[in-house]
Amino acid sequence: MRAAVMTNWNLTVEDVPDPEPRAGQVLAKVLACGICGSDLHMLKHGAEQIRLRDELAVDAPPDPLAPIAFEPSRPLVMGHEFCCEIVDVGPGTGRGRVGDVVVSMPGAFDDRGMHALGYSNLLPGVYGELMVLNDELILPVPGGLPPRHAALTEPLAVGVHAVNKSRIERSDASIVLGCGPVGLALIAALVNRGIGPVVAADFSPARRALAEHFGAHVVVDPREQSAVAAWRQADGQRPLVIFEAVGVPGMIDQAMRAAPRDTRIVVVGVCMQQDHMQPAIGILRELSMQFVLAYTPEEFAATLDLIAGGAFDLDPLVTGTVGVDDVPQAFADLANPEAHAKILVEPGR
Amino acid sequence: MRAAVMTNWNLTVEDVPDPEPRAGQVLAKVLACGICGSDLHMLKHGAEQIRLRDELAVDAPPDPLAPIAFEPSRPLVMGHEFCCEIVDVGPGTGRGRVGDVVVSMPGAFDDRGMHALGYSNLLPGVYGELMVLNDELILPVPGGLPPRHAALTEPLAVGVHAVNKSRIERSDASIVLGCGPVGLALIAALVNRGIGPVVAADFSPARRALAEHFGAHVVVDPREQSAVAAWRQADGQRPLVIFEAVGVPGMIDQAMRAAPRDTRIVVVGVCMQQDHMQPAIGILRELSMQFVLAYTPEEFAATLDLIAGGAFDLDPLVTGTVGVDDVPQAFADLANPEAHAKILVEPGR
Repeated sequence: MRAAVMTNWNLTVEDVPDPEPRAGQVLAKVLACGICGSDLHMLKHGAEQIRLRDELAVDAPPDPLAPIAFEPSRPLVMGHEFCCEIVDVGPGTGRGRVGDVVVSMPGAFDDRGMHALGYSNLLPGVYGELMVLNDELILPVPGGLPPRHAALTEPLAVGVHAVNKSRIERSDASIVLGCGPVGLALIAALVNRGIGPVVAADFSPARRALAEHFGAHVVVDPREQSAVAAWRQADGQRPLVIFEAVGVPGMIDQAMRAAPRDTRIVVVGVCMQQDHMQPAIGILRELSMQFVLAYTPEEFAATLDLIAGGAFDLDPLVTGTVGVDDVPQAFADLANPEAHAKILVEPGR
Repeated sequence: MRAAVMTNWNLTVEDVPDPEPRAGQVLAKVLACGICGSDLHMLKHGAEQIRLRDELAVDAPPDPLAPIAFEPSRPLVMGHEFCCEIVDVGPGTGRGRVGDVVVSMPGAFDDRGMHALGYSNLLPGVYGELMVLNDELILPVPGGLPPRHAALTEPLAVGVHAVNKSRIERSDASIVLGCGPVGLALIAALVNRGIGPVVAADFSPARRALAEHFGAHVVVDPREQSAVAAWRQADGQRPLVIFEAVGVPGMIDQAMRAAPRDTRIVVVGVCMQQDHMQPAIGILRELSMQFVLAYTPEEFAATLDLIAGGAFDLDPLVTGTVGVDDVPQAFADLANPEAHAKILVEPGR
């Protein structure tokens, strides 16, 4: 099959062997999948991440649930946000049938162990034509929900999870720093939860327009007004939760410097480099920081339900659609926030 | 009066004018006061802290409750952990009477504003013979409680507050990194709360002995076994809260690298320099971090009650007693953790 393959932090499109379903697995063709910002980060900072992973592994006790570590010098099909259609089933299955349109959390397991789809040398991620999934983990996509919307379950679930993990309540206010796909997922989840005001900040006019589309109550260009100043103007009273959704060095420090006393900072943007901060600021203001990752199976399923129930108008989020052969170009195009938010790959187009 | 005075981050002993109580204030003579590690840090890193304070002040909205900022080039009597005896009362008082032995949170206010005792050019801190306090804020020391124990209310309240703020429960385990006075206050508060196991780590044998004295269940030398490895051996199951009580750059990073998934890190040690970390570790493990400062008035009063009720055997914590003239030497002596934990100043000795 054709697939976008990462080897030594370079992305190329190649013919790779079709995956084969093992016991308990189904074979599926990818209908639509999203390109995730963390994949762009990984090409740039993956080597540092691998060094860190290997450093940490030295002292860590064995974890049978940890996915099998990938080797960056061996080919790896990236991608982990998807909707697909079952085209074959392996032995020991029974839930999914050929023709079913499904989503799943991007993990699979077999007799070899756990696989993080998109970060595995053994099972392909979703920037390709075919993939395998565990029958037990698939969720049927409700009839009538377009695959391009169902494929957004994964990034939107990241927002739902971060909002849950923040323990934010209706009596709290929020700020979202960065209105890329993660920031927009946060805004959508916060507004859906009835939180207000939601103050959003981004340098890009196109992304600020998307923040408004998803219901942010105040949207600022940080060159003109800081998010905290805008919150003070709009509210200034409620306990504040700041969601950091940029994920580059310096953002945590910036959020800490701007935060009023007792602010909770939720770190959602994935910064893959070493970062700095002034602990004294955290201490003087008694700040707290919650780092978050991914979502629970329940949150993933609930997000699919929210999408199917029409909670979000997702079309404006999708700013481009490409085939597998154009994935490397799409990675380059995503560097321009004015042009793009989420680019979908439709291998069958 | 004689007092240990800081000017331009140098500590000298000088004759300074006696303070005078204003409306609502009492004049008190210091019976005993503790030397705090943060005062040692301030002499070393105060200039960086002032730069940071001034940077942050640019964007901050006015805060009428913030203490009046001190000017490091003007003399300042340091010290903020104390027990004293009222020797005179100003107008508009009525609670405190001459001869009363009292403690207070180290803050005072008058017609000029709020003053942080020990960090004020206007009102003296407690490394001197006399001080003023607000009549409304004083707490009587129960009869029979020695002033040298009552003076430890402040540092012990830091431990009580950090434990409260951590939201730790009896079903959780804890690690305390660093067994200086702050770490020991944490151990005392955790043990008093019925938390177990409490795993404590320090390079110094003398401080490890004090950790055992205050009830730590497992005490390790980090050169021989890491605190997390010791926790795994002793427990390894309960949700873990790590209290960072060292306060030097690199400790937060070290705690994050060692922490298992979902660990809550409580930052109690006051690091006054820029620090570094790897956000990716926080994200992969969904760590949280709570920075804490000081205590509430209720926690301060509750700590005095705990001490008066005999909850802690405090004598071994006090490793030295000096007069005002010997405060600079005591600062130097505190650099050796083998020789000292808490040195008390008794100006009347």
